[in-house]
Order: sequence, then structure tokens, then C-alpha cells
Amino acid sequence: MAYQLHYWPGIQGRGEFVRLALEAAGAPYVDVARGPQAQGQGMAAMLAVLEGQDVARPPFACPFLVDGRRVIGQTAAILQYLGPRLKLVAASEADQLWTHQIQLTLADLVTEAHDVHHPIGSSLYYEDQKAEALRRAQDFRRNRIPKFLQWCEAVLERNPRNAGAEVPRLVGGRLSYADLSLFQVVDGLLYALPKATRRVLKKVPHVAALHAGVPRHKRLAAYLASERRIPFNEEGIFRSYPELDG
Amino acid sequence: MAYQLHYWPGIQGRGEFVRLALEAAGAPYVDVARGPQAQGQGMAAMLAVLEGQDVARPPFACPFLVDGRRVIGQTAAILQYLGPRLKLVAASEADQLWTHQIQLTLADLVTEAHDVHHPIGSSLYYEDQKAEALRRAQDFRRNRIPKFLQWCEAVLERNPRNAGAEVPRLVGGRLSYADLSLFQVVDGLLYALPKATRRVLKKVPHVAALHAGVPRHKRLAAYLASERRIPFNEEGIFRSYPELDG
Repeated sequence: MAYQLHYWPGIQGRGEFVRLALEAAGAPYVDVARGPQAQGQGMAAMLAVLEGQDVARPPFACPFLVDGRRVIGQTAAILQYLGPRLKLVAASEADQLWTHQIQLTLADLVTEAHDVHHPIGSSLYYEDQKAEALRRAQDFRRNRIPKFLQWCEAVLERNPRNAGAEVPRLVGGRLSYADLSLFQVVDGLLYALPKATRRVLKKVPHVAALHAGVPRHKRLAAYLASERRIPFNEEGIFRSYPELDG
Repeated sequence: MAYQLHYWPGIQGRGEFVRLALEAAGAPYVDVARGPQAQGQGMAAMLAVLEGQDVARPPFACPFLVDGRRVIGQTAAILQYLGPRLKLVAASEADQLWTHQIQLTLADLVTEAHDVHHPIGSSLYYEDQKAEALRRAQDFRRNRIPKFLQWCEAVLERNPRNAGAEVPRLVGGRLSYADLSLFQVVDGLLYALPKATRRVLKKVPHVAALHAGVPRHKRLAAYLASERRIPFNEEGIFRSYPELDG
């Protein structure tokens, strides 16, 4: 049966990390909130799970995945669940835990990338917290992007399977969902803060090579060129506000 | 062999979530950075892992757990690893995933609780971002604490095993690491923002009952009364700045 992915229809957001995994694996899935209401899809179907009083184990927010009777929230938990099923994680417990740990660290970076333009609160518009955003962006550019991407660089450098590899991998020698997520984070940062991100990428060649290499994956390339890939925009996590790029 | 927990010595911080699990289970552990340097402990031992060039799979930050050859970072991942080993999670995959999902959601709340006093960046003092903190705290009090704790209340209400239970549990009928974490988050919020938190607790009786009941656990009660429990303070995640309590 097809997986059901539930996420806001107009943005990549956190749903994109799950979408990339499903697409890379060629797994059948329904992008529920983007589907037609007449077929029981659309926003109403998503909100029925998020707000339904009869959902025994309600997700706190989207994205969430429905797989038969399972309802799984939290991006990193969804990917941990899908990883072995989609063959996007190594087989050993140690490797799976390490991949998850990397994913959780990337999730922290994603939260910070969002909070750059929303340092005061998600309930307010960007325009109402722009002064604060300018300050937060400076710290994010100077301290946080380098810290996170240098850590990723160290992870890639220390993976013995990357010696001589054309496209480096975060864990072992095969593509994992963490590689897809690092591609996505770098892609988003390049959209949001191109000047700052390019400066950092010059110092983390393995990260840059991963970002360049992942979209050459056949199924991913097809996905990224398709209409299923929502373009980055100023409603999502990664927003192009040039004033924040210093 | 004893688990090694590595975390900043002067604060509860994120390390406390791991500490509570180890203490509740009566598991042998060494709180490495708080130990004597003469015995190979102290901050130097922690930094050797965080900064060592020879660590194959370096944690991004503390807390991290060392169990033999395993080095595990990210609080929620540590607890997911320890859960079955300490019998602080149910046996089924579905229950374990749900417990982890709750933990990840609590982790998001912890991040927001921290960012209330550091909305611009961790590299700056609170005093240098106090104006922004006052704004962020207002959003956190009005919108975020209620949203998170009401979700926890729904989780507790919908757990069928809580019918007639004196102390409700988040998952199934037995104490899990997520229960310990919810206790800790509520305890921290009561320290940091007592007025705002008490207002919300009146509307979430199951959460309040869990917070009141967890510390009656025998081993936890002993721990909480001991010197191993670092008091809340203004270096940690939950800080008592009365101006932020509205």
C-alpha cells in the first residue's frame, strides 16, 4: 500500500526531507494535502488527523506519515522508520543510530535556519520581527552555518568509505536518507543565504561534493525536474531575504 | 560496565534528561565532566571526545553517552538507545517509536524554552538580547507553552491505560523515559516562568498529575534530594528571569 505523506501543500518545508527519501527509493506514496478533496485528500484530510479527537496517538505537527494503522510524526522519526524499509540506511544498529544522530543534528540546523527569519515567534510575520532577524542572521552566518557544516565535513572526512569516492556519503558507502537531508539543507541555505553559504562551502569540500553529487542520482534528478518538487519560496523554511545575507 | 554520560558540569541542561533515566533505572554511570581529572575525568575527558581528530563518529555537542565503543549524541537518540536497556520503554516497535516521537516533541519545546532568553544567538549574553527576549517570551507564554502542554494533555487523555491511574503515563501503563522528560520540562518551566506555567497547568490536569507523581518514584526521589541533582540556575536552559514571566 502507498505511504501517505501529510504536509502543507505550498512549501517544501520539513516535508521535503521525507519526500526526497520516498522519491529516491521510488516508493509509492500519496502527498495527501496536495491531492484532490474529492478523493478524500487535500488539507481537510491532513487536519482530520492533526485535530481529530479520535486519533489515539496524534502527531504534534506535520509532516507525518501514515503507513496502514501507523501514524508517525517528527521528520527524523519518520526517516528512521522509513530508512530500512526504503533501503536508505545501513543494516547494523550502530550505523542506523549514527545516521539518525546525523539527521537529528541536521534537524537542529533546519530549526535555526527557520528561526533566522522568525526569531521572535511563528505567530508573527517576518516584517514584524525584521530588526531581530537582522541580528539573528548575523550570528547564524558567522557562527552557526560554519559550525554545522564543518561538523558535517568532519563526518564525511572520517568516513573511511569516502576514500576515492566521487560522491562522499555520511555513513558507509551507500546513499542514506541523511545524505539526502544534507543535500536539501545545503540547497536551502544556498537559496536563502547564497553569499554566506558559498563562503562556507569553499572550506568544506566534501559537503560541497555531496551537494553537487546527490542530484545526479537518476530518480532524484527526475524528481527535482518535476512539478512534484515545489520551488523554494518565502513561505517556507529557507527564504530569500537578501538583507539577511549580510 | 558503567555508562559514561558527558555533559557540562554546572547545569542540568539537556544532560538532565539522560541523568533522570539512568537514575530512575538505578543504572551504573559516571558523570564524566563532573569527575576528577586525576581519574581521567573532568572537562578534559569530555572535550577529548568532542574535539578529538581521531573520533570516527564525533557528536556535534554534548550530552553524549559512551557505552563501550559506542559514542551516541543527541538527547533523544541517547534515550532511544537506553530505553530498552533500562526498561524505560515498552517492548513493541510501535510503542518505542511513539515514545521517541513524544521525546522529539519535548526536545523541540526545550529548544524553544532556551531560545526565550537567547532569541538572537547563544554566542551573546542574555543582557545583550534582553529586548528581543522580552518579545519572544510573550509569544512563548501565550502560544507555545499552551500548545505543547495541551498536546501532552491529549496524549495522556487518550492513553487508555490512564483510566483510573493515580499517576498518568504518556505511553502504556509503565513509566517511560518520556514521562521523566515531561516531568523535567514542566519542572523547568515552573522554575523559569512560574506564573505563566501555573496558568497553563490549571488547564492540563493530567500533565499536572504526572509532574506531581513522577518525583514520588523511590529512586528518583532519592536522586532529586541528592547533590547529584544540580539546582536550576541562570546558566542552564531554564532560567529564572522574572521580567520574562509577564
